[in-house]
Amino acid sequence: MAAAMRFFSDNAAAVCPEVMAALLAANRIDTAYDGDALSARLNGAFSHLFGKEVEALWVTTGTTANCLALAALCPPYGGIVCHRDAHIQVDECGAPEFYTHGAKLLLVGGEGAKVTPDAVEAVTATIRNDVHQVQPRALSITNATEYGLVYSPAEVAALGELCRSLGLGFHMDGARFANAVARLGCHPGDLSWRAGVDALSFGFVKNGGMSAEVLILFGSEHRQATLYRRKRAGQLLSKGRFLAAQILAMLEGDVWLRNARAANEAAARLAGAAGDRLVLPVEANEVFLKVTPEETAALRAKGFDFYDWGPGEARLVTAWDSDPREVEALAAAIAAL
Amino acid sequence: MAAAMRFFSDNAAAVCPEVMAALLAANRIDTAYDGDALSARLNGAFSHLFGKEVEALWVTTGTTANCLALAALCPPYGGIVCHRDAHIQVDECGAPEFYTHGAKLLLVGGEGAKVTPDAVEAVTATIRNDVHQVQPRALSITNATEYGLVYSPAEVAALGELCRSLGLGFHMDGARFANAVARLGCHPGDLSWRAGVDALSFGFVKNGGMSAEVLILFGSEHRQATLYRRKRAGQLLSKGRFLAAQILAMLEGDVWLRNARAANEAAARLAGAAGDRLVLPVEANEVFLKVTPEETAALRAKGFDFYDWGPGEARLVTAWDSDPREVEALAAAIAAL
Amino acid sequence: MAAAMRFFSDNAAAVCPEVMAALLAANRIDTAYDGDALSARLNGAFSHLFGKEVEALWVTTGTTANCLALAALCPPYGGIVCHRDAHIQVDECGAPEFYTHGAKLLLVGGEGAKVTPDAVEAVTATIRNDVHQVQPRALSITNATEYGLVYSPAEVAALGELCRSLGLGFHMDGARFANAVARLGCHPGDLSWRAGVDALSFGFVKNGGMSAEVLILFGSEHRQATLYRRKRAGQLLSKGRFLAAQILAMLEGDVWLRNARAANEAAARLAGAAGDRLVLPVEANEVFLKVTPEETAALRAKGFDFYDWGPGEARLVTAWDSDPREVEALAAAIAAL
Amino acid sequence: MAAAMRFFSDNAAAVCPEVMAALLAANRIDTAYDGDALSARLNGAFSHLFGKEVEALWVTTGTTANCLALAALCPPYGGIVCHRDAHIQVDECGAPEFYTHGAKLLLVGGEGAKVTPDAVEAVTATIRNDVHQVQPRALSITNATEYGLVYSPAEVAALGELCRSLGLGFHMDGARFANAVARLGCHPGDLSWRAGVDALSFGFVKNGGMSAEVLILFGSEHRQATLYRRKRAGQLLSKGRFLAAQILAMLEGDVWLRNARAANEAAARLAGAAGDRLVLPVEANEVFLKVTPEETAALRAKGFDFYDWGPGEARLVTAWDSDPREVEALAAAIAAL
Repeated sequence: MAAAMRFFSDNAAAVCPEVMAALLAANRIDTAYDGDALSARLNGAFSHLFGKEVEALWVTTGTTANCLALAALCPPYGGIVCHRDAHIQVDECGAPEFYTHGAKLLLVGGEGAKVTPDAVEAVTATIRNDVHQVQPRALSITNATEYGLVYSPAEVAALGELCRSLGLGFHMDGARFANAVARLGCHPGDLSWRAGVDALSFGFVKNGGMSAEVLILFGSEHRQATLYRRKRAGQLLSKGRFLAAQILAMLEGDVWLRNARAANEAAARLAGAAGDRLVLPVEANEVFLKVTPEETAALRAKGFDFYDWGPGEARLVTAWDSDPREVEALAAAIAAL
Repeated sequence: MAAAMRFFSDNAAAVCPEVMAALLAANRIDTAYDGDALSARLNGAFSHLFGKEVEALWVTTGTTANCLALAALCPPYGGIVCHRDAHIQVDECGAPEFYTHGAKLLLVGGEGAKVTPDAVEAVTATIRNDVHQVQPRALSITNATEYGLVYSPAEVAALGELCRSLGLGFHMDGARFANAVARLGCHPGDLSWRAGVDALSFGFVKNGGMSAEVLILFGSEHRQATLYRRKRAGQLLSKGRFLAAQILAMLEGDVWLRNARAANEAAARLAGAAGDRLVLPVEANEVFLKVTPEETAALRAKGFDFYDWGPGEARLVTAWDSDPREVEALAAAIAAL
Repeated sequence: MAAAMRFFSDNAAAVCPEVMAALLAANRIDTAYDGDALSARLNGAFSHLFGKEVEALWVTTGTTANCLALAALCPPYGGIVCHRDAHIQVDECGAPEFYTHGAKLLLVGGEGAKVTPDAVEAVTATIRNDVHQVQPRALSITNATEYGLVYSPAEVAALGELCRSLGLGFHMDGARFANAVARLGCHPGDLSWRAGVDALSFGFVKNGGMSAEVLILFGSEHRQATLYRRKRAGQLLSKGRFLAAQILAMLEGDVWLRNARAANEAAARLAGAAGDRLVLPVEANEVFLKVTPEETAALRAKGFDFYDWGPGEARLVTAWDSDPREVEALAAAIAAL
Repeated sequence: MAAAMRFFSDNAAAVCPEVMAALLAANRIDTAYDGDALSARLNGAFSHLFGKEVEALWVTTGTTANCLALAALCPPYGGIVCHRDAHIQVDECGAPEFYTHGAKLLLVGGEGAKVTPDAVEAVTATIRNDVHQVQPRALSITNATEYGLVYSPAEVAALGELCRSLGLGFHMDGARFANAVARLGCHPGDLSWRAGVDALSFGFVKNGGMSAEVLILFGSEHRQATLYRRKRAGQLLSKGRFLAAQILAMLEGDVWLRNARAANEAAARLAGAAGDRLVLPVEANEVFLKVTPEETAALRAKGFDFYDWGPGEARLVTAWDSDPREVEALAAAIAAL
């Protein structure tokens, strides 16, 4: 029997050839931890990419990048405004609470897991400024969102401005930052620090990496504390050069953008076939469909693997390595429902 | 100019060919996190190795393995007896305190970072059994120790028995467990669960792996909690199959023992040349030498790279991939001092 | 100018004479911490009251009692179901997160801050039973609620049964437990352990005490851990006899019930005058009124002090020592609006 | 049978009349938490006492005062240098680790629990300035020490200067600060902020209070965070006016100094009788004696209650209310050994 055609998660994707080649090339004796020559190149590479001097720290998961950022921006007694469908709220098993030593997530709603300035203002307005209530100290958004929507630079900047006025640190979970940039065609700086973002979790694993993500700090004031926290969290790998190698390979020749574009295009192809079935616009590499149980069964019978997403919905995720023939087949199958 | 001949840390060693091959072989789409076919084989593989049903969880660092074990064995208000030179005390930046939510390390002395039953009894005897004092709840030892000594099965069993009588959980930091087993030629079970060990950090990275270590739980009662803690620590990698692949490659054909033997033999060769200069017996892959500043300078001038270790001492660490010619050259250089 | 007539919080009430007398009587040398003769009587006194052997620990605040209970019932990686208006969620500045080391509060709605079995089932049903999501481990309700409603023994028992079936520990915040028991006229055991409650924060301060609350554990399995946590939280007072004295004085001759009845009756008197203005039924010592800004201004002009409670509402709280003349005057003023 | 004559702890002492009178006087309705008129006077009263604008926060235990101070001065990933016999290390059940979220205590030795600049420099010199080791961030000393020795203003200033040069925050556990000031006859400011102390736990309970201690912050930068931490620790009592009342009563007319002098003088009387038996000089209200088991038995047979303190030593503690006849009787009994 043929293997299933997998559209259930970009986490399941393979590692792209450039990354594999870089791992092989990095396989020689070198200084341990982050003292090696490859790790030493990260700050420079990302400063160049973002057009600003930044601090870039490798870690092995997006959860770690997110939570180191949150621990930098929010004290244990503070609150972090985020969407109720945010990954940090629903899919990290309380890692933000662990890393921040007990900060509270302050939840807002909004279509497609997207946070608006109005929603932030509404939730912060309910909080009395006294010692009995957890005070908001940070905002975290995900771009592209968990539902595949993309914030534009202007939308991010509006939130960034609000953060400044409310005294909130501003974190962006960029597990699919590449997909957002690829979609928008903008400069990475326009979608981050120029729009007021203080810390960015820049994802590589869903986009063709093996085990390396990067936390970007757009200022230096949290660098020292974050280095200690990374070590203390067991995230300072002794052969860190293999993380740096992956990341540098993804930056080289804009592999990260090429991969993200491929994933976005595959999703767009599915979206085109889905028509009225789309629950939300498809702006990155996730497609949410309205389907009946019979229809999902029919798709599965044809060999497609994906998640049900609540009653009457299915989630399809494409990746950098989605097989064009499988994408076409799925598009056809959707159109034929 | 020739590259330095590196004897400063097994953390700096390369990745062995079997592990690299396994990474390449694992590079296809599969289920995310630890739901893949390779990860699913870990429990079985280690149960077979240890002669007992065990739980085996991959993580990316020894620090994480150690601290997940300690969090399982010790509550936030408890104490962990360990050597004052233990890695968990001096080289993990407070990770045990982070993962356990504030447990206290209760320090003992002892030559070569080795803990004796007498030392454990002495420190626990100073603690009043009342609510004002942190009560000991676990013992952690390192085998081979941070100074390259090896506990025999009998020595471990004596500590294990004491742990039972004192109500302490028993953790072994086995960053160099392979070197200890290779040295002793014993069954891995004899050096662990049969001697009363509850949790073992089984190291692979120093021994030829890239980024995968294993936490072995010799009972099932802490499994659920530890799975949550691993996730929450940001250590549940989305492409976990690449961790499992490394580990299985090391077990296959006893690569782990072959590599450890190579490192031990290289160290033994250096020890043979060192004679009276040895600070401690060489039982694994670390050699501590008495040397003058002039002598360390002379060794460095010949291209050897290593750490000074306090005044008048130097540390030489061999690895699975220590170049035999470099080892010979270093042995000769030591003999010629 | 006359002092304001205070209806803004039972926290502002005076200390009742029996408690003051007990403090004076306790003022002699005795053993420190909780080793004194008065503290030693607590377990017996509360076991008698509840008709079951219990563990009773004094602490100085309801927040501490609540959070020690939650830390006993929920691990750091677990979740606590509670109402979104619960004191532990909105008025303890993240103390639950601090004491539990980062557990997550899982919020439900419901009129008058009351939690129903349906609401508990609805929120737990949304949580996938996998390692990515915080799993519910405890339920916490407040009786009387933050809005002055009272759960009956049957209502509590329905929740208790659900907790058993879902594997949740069951905590009751009884800051106004006395008011609930006084209202219901039931046995304290019927409203707690017989209905499945595992831990009860039994409040005395709002009800005439000075600085002593009690945490009741209806089983012994969490006693040791809780004693360590209390000490570690800085809540083991060295002259603990003065806490025990307050509590015993409140139990003696059912002062706690007498005081609670007085507060409830004062609230009932106000409720009688309020008629259609009542936002919720008045079942304990809190009265929520629908009022216009002009009406609240009018009441304040007459010397009454109280909180606005959102737009168009006012909160009036009575206490054991509410002056009957002031209550009559307020009732008349309300009726005259 | 007559009650024992208690010399085992100043924690067991009674509450002095001024404090009791103040509690009675404070027993009227007032605003809750720390919003009352008495609490509002604390900053002013202590600013006057210390000759500098300070922040003064009431708490209920010395452990809480200590740990709030440490949490202000040391991040979770930092270290706190203290004596190995310090109360924060041996008698607070890990409260510093709880409040700081896992900071590590870095222990030094020294006679009579006294820390010297040399000892601080020695321990900090062993710590590599890299991310693998917990970096020292604060120093905590106890004055008078746990063994009844007193640091002079010059000794504190030498440590304060060292703290500045090493970048350490400086905390003083002043559970017996009154005894130290009484002994030295110096200005409280000379023993604290003028000598570089950043935060002082100012004890009142051992010295005649019931349940109120004060945390003094000599700068304003940690005030906000500390207020949140106090609330979050369950230490913001709802009837806080009864804590403020105690403290103000102790300051009024220098009751705190009068009480401390009485305790010191009683200890001096015992010291005078002890001669060569003294283990350490008696500078505050603690007396450590060399005694044989037979001698301790003899003293106990005469009705004196005290702690054995390791083999061959006994600890006698006097208090503000030590009965002069009992002191004389004990002095005579010691002399007669």
